[in-house]
Amino acid sequence: MQGGTIAVNTSRQREFVDLTAELAQAVAATGVDEGVLHVYNPHTTAGLTINEGADPAVRRDILAALERAVPDIDFHHLEGNSPAHVMASLMGSSVTVLVEQGRLRLGTWQKIFFCEFDGPRSRKVWWRVSAAG
Amino acid sequence: MQGGTIAVNTSRQREFVDLTAELAQAVAATGVDEGVLHVYNPHTTAGLTINEGADPAVRRDILAALERAVPDIDFHHLEGNSPAHVMASLMGSSVTVLVEQGRLRLGTWQKIFFCEFDGPRSRKVWWRVSAAG
Amino acid sequence: MQGGTIAVNTSRQREFVDLTAELAQAVAATGVDEGVLHVYNPHTTAGLTINEGADPAVRRDILAALERAVPDIDFHHLEGNSPAHVMASLMGSSVTVLVEQGRLRLGTWQKIFFCEFDGPRSRKVWWRVSAAG
Repeated sequence: MQGGTIAVNTSRQREFVDLTAELAQAVAATGVDEGVLHVYNPHTTAGLTINEGADPAVRRDILAALERAVPDIDFHHLEGNSPAHVMASLMGSSVTVLVEQGRLRLGTWQKIFFCEFDGPRSRKVWWRVSAAG
Repeated sequence: MQGGTIAVNTSRQREFVDLTAELAQAVAATGVDEGVLHVYNPHTTAGLTINEGADPAVRRDILAALERAVPDIDFHHLEGNSPAHVMASLMGSSVTVLVEQGRLRLGTWQKIFFCEFDGPRSRKVWWRVSAAG
Repeated sequence: MQGGTIAVNTSRQREFVDLTAELAQAVAATGVDEGVLHVYNPHTTAGLTINEGADPAVRRDILAALERAVPDIDFHHLEGNSPAHVMASLMGSSVTVLVEQGRLRLGTWQKIFFCEFDGPRSRKVWWRVSAAG
């Protein structure tokens, strides 16, 4: 099992950052042929998701839908970023991707996105590849 | 580590398809006694979830709640299926299930569902069993 | 690979219960140094999530946001707890956490929460640590 950390610098309050190329490169460098990649987000106002990467409008639409589903109502958390915490739990703190022949096995249109919900910030993502037994 | 592909043919725009029996059979055929099953959905307008299988009304209610939470507002993605992309990220692209004594260890009422949000289509799901080290 | 069960007794209809300390202790007791922890919820009206543990208002706000996003509309499931099933799928049935030097590798503010959506009930959570190959 081998792993590492990827730095993510976000530039807006909310945005999706494509981590696919960096993760693919990291997995290739491990030399693991068959296994499972676990990507983990250690932040509580950010998440991870896998969705379409071809049309950037899809990412914007997902953010717009999340903002509509989680409006900034009368929350109790005094930092004022409760919607970001909710969105983090809705997207989830980790994604799992199969590794085959040393490569990430994603669907044709899939990319792995870091979901910033309370930026801009300096973020990081941890990953680990579990090799086939 | 052993894995495979399951074909899923959906017949409606939105529906949940129960994959539990096929996945249980696939896991049994691997001969793995103890481990973890990873199920992965490679599509960007579909997802995976684990929920109640006994009463089909539960699946319909989850779909109705998702349609209410993610209405088809003024989205930018020109294919017109943005709600399906949002629902895919809300449900998630993979599920993980423990394997014990060669069998899926699910809760009493739990079934593993493929979530079609933009059908009908020919879909597939990838799975892999990671054996205990 | 080693695992176990944690009992969770909830005292309200909806609440988040912090399982971090118990899971950290369980992982330490396995003696596994490097690996991945899988936590699995076998109930269909409960879930698991990782979010901020410092301010209890965050948990309350997440619940309030879920109740707003999934109101108790005219559902078909006759048990009357359809919103709980929907929230279960939104949060997800499992979480994955990296294990390093025998310890859970969580973000500074992160805690692992059991999400009760239809309590109070006696619940349980299954966990398994997959050691590095």
